[in-house]
Amino acid sequence: MSRFLNDKYSSLEAYTPGEQPRDMKYIKLNTNESPFPPSKAVVDAVSAEEVEKLRLYPDPECKELKEAIASLYGVERENVFLSNGSDDILNFTFMAFFDKKGVVFPEISYGFYKVYADLYALDYKQVELCEEFSIDANDYMNTGRNVVIANPNAPTGMTISLADVERIVASNRDAVVLIDEAYVDFGGESCIPLTKKYDNLIVCCTYSKSRSLAGARLGFAIANKELIGDLEKIKYSTNPYNINRLTMLAGIAAIKDNDYYMNNCRVIEENREYTARELRKLGFEVLDSKANFIFAKSDEVGGEELYLKLKARGILVRHFTKERIKEYNRITIGTMDDMKAFVSAVADILCEVRK
Amino acid sequence: MSRFLNDKYSSLEAYTPGEQPRDMKYIKLNTNESPFPPSKAVVDAVSAEEVEKLRLYPDPECKELKEAIASLYGVERENVFLSNGSDDILNFTFMAFFDKKGVVFPEISYGFYKVYADLYALDYKQVELCEEFSIDANDYMNTGRNVVIANPNAPTGMTISLADVERIVASNRDAVVLIDEAYVDFGGESCIPLTKKYDNLIVCCTYSKSRSLAGARLGFAIANKELIGDLEKIKYSTNPYNINRLTMLAGIAAIKDNDYYMNNCRVIEENREYTARELRKLGFEVLDSKANFIFAKSDEVGGEELYLKLKARGILVRHFTKERIKEYNRITIGTMDDMKAFVSAVADILCEVRK
Repeated sequence: MSRFLNDKYSSLEAYTPGEQPRDMKYIKLNTNESPFPPSKAVVDAVSAEEVEKLRLYPDPECKELKEAIASLYGVERENVFLSNGSDDILNFTFMAFFDKKGVVFPEISYGFYKVYADLYALDYKQVELCEEFSIDANDYMNTGRNVVIANPNAPTGMTISLADVERIVASNRDAVVLIDEAYVDFGGESCIPLTKKYDNLIVCCTYSKSRSLAGARLGFAIANKELIGDLEKIKYSTNPYNINRLTMLAGIAAIKDNDYYMNNCRVIEENREYTARELRKLGFEVLDSKANFIFAKSDEVGGEELYLKLKARGILVRHFTKERIKEYNRITIGTMDDMKAFVSAVADILCEVRK
Repeated sequence: MSRFLNDKYSSLEAYTPGEQPRDMKYIKLNTNESPFPPSKAVVDAVSAEEVEKLRLYPDPECKELKEAIASLYGVERENVFLSNGSDDILNFTFMAFFDKKGVVFPEISYGFYKVYADLYALDYKQVELCEEFSIDANDYMNTGRNVVIANPNAPTGMTISLADVERIVASNRDAVVLIDEAYVDFGGESCIPLTKKYDNLIVCCTYSKSRSLAGARLGFAIANKELIGDLEKIKYSTNPYNINRLTMLAGIAAIKDNDYYMNNCRVIEENREYTARELRKLGFEVLDSKANFIFAKSDEVGGEELYLKLKARGILVRHFTKERIKEYNRITIGTMDDMKAFVSAVADILCEVRK
């Protein structure tokens, strides 16, 4: 820390992204990326001719891409906000709206929520999950606070129903409810249609998972136009050009190829069910996930030990050190080959520890 | 504005980017982009194979790109910070360091400085430029505040000497001095070497101008490692993956092709001198610019009128409405063909208004 950093940030603990070791080639099941490449239309859209146009700024209004997204989700362009990944959107939302009433979110959820709450010195409350790791919607009724819920939740993969989302939004009409749908395409149910009915709902989505574009940096939010206008104001007051020109083209092409991506999601779901089944056969407890990852633990091998033994075998999964979940690992769902290799490595490790 | 926006942002005025009209094809001399495409090595680096890898997150540590930049500027990797364009770096710097002592910057300068100061509710002071639009370094000695200076300044294009920069940095040792060198490659003198001597200096640079990558979103800062560490902390607390994978590759390739870009800068300088000479022949007052734009006014045609008449002729320049500079226009330097077309259009307009 320099002697110049504002005092308020001195004890701030930044987010820790998943590791990216380069000492060998790993089967990467640790950052919830897609195992499938972007569609051919996306690859074609990033042509040499377009790379030459990188000399020009991107369109800060992102008109074409907004129109493509609006059309896919049945909303208007004015209901779409675009930014550099969904983290950027979460950041702007915490910054723009949560000062007045503070915010509440689940204790076990995406780790960045707490970072944003600390960064902006917000008054925040974390609600414990139920015993079986689900979110009880009743804990988020009439909170008097803004509300943030990931649905499906991370790292559990568990969902709340659309009816419960609506109950939460309806009971907190004087506060913003942010539903983070980063993982919704793998079997969840999107609440985007509710943005037409409620002026206090922001739905945050990403191209990083189901649309195979984690490296392109593209996220979007859907909400009523006043909320979108406020997010635009914050973006135009920090970094208006934050989406790469090529990313904009890739985003438009990906919308046109929606079937390709939705089909990939179905494959991920099948691979997820396979993996969960195999792990259960090996005695694991596996939470019921609707995301592109599963969260699992074994009574025979500790969470950290399993993570380390998998890493030594060239397979990366994500381990968290928080007390309540430290015996679990979050395993991204890859191709069937990836998952077979993973299951086989886990079986090996169990043999080893049983000796 | 929604009913949810934090009160502190209700009167915030966001930055206004240069217009991007699409009704016809313009000669674009309004946003200081390079008229030259990225080098062949950059185009080659963005291969179809790499586009397919967009399914993966970028390296948040940006190791390779940091090393390339460090090597070009003769510093260490720990002295380099990378983010999504230099606006992002300015934003983080205003956010991280300027709470305690507030900040001072020139009244006529990059318009975003005031936006950041308002956004973070900083105590700020704007210092008038000298009568001939230059910055008097003496106004920034022992300020008791953090200091931000664009060198060359925008939209004037005028520079202060390296000796003056050092005097400012040395006289404000207990505050951060941010030197914004977005336009330094067009004839200015970089103060990057001073970062080895002073722990309170941040130099902010961009790939958007001299390196023909405005659409890729890449900026970097050079400073001592403690300041860089603080900027990293803020980045990792907002959006750690904010640089596109392809941008990272483009940035590395551009460093390898440094000669190509520096040669383009020399061409821009020649075109700038040509344009300034021709405008002066037409009776314009043209400030002495070391940037890739010039700032000029005529006594025969008003600033806004000239801007509108040029636009009607298919040439975009940037006009600002601030009282002191409203009779001027900022003209980006393009190719010689662009500048000949511009000079010819200006000559026409003068004929028209003289009638």
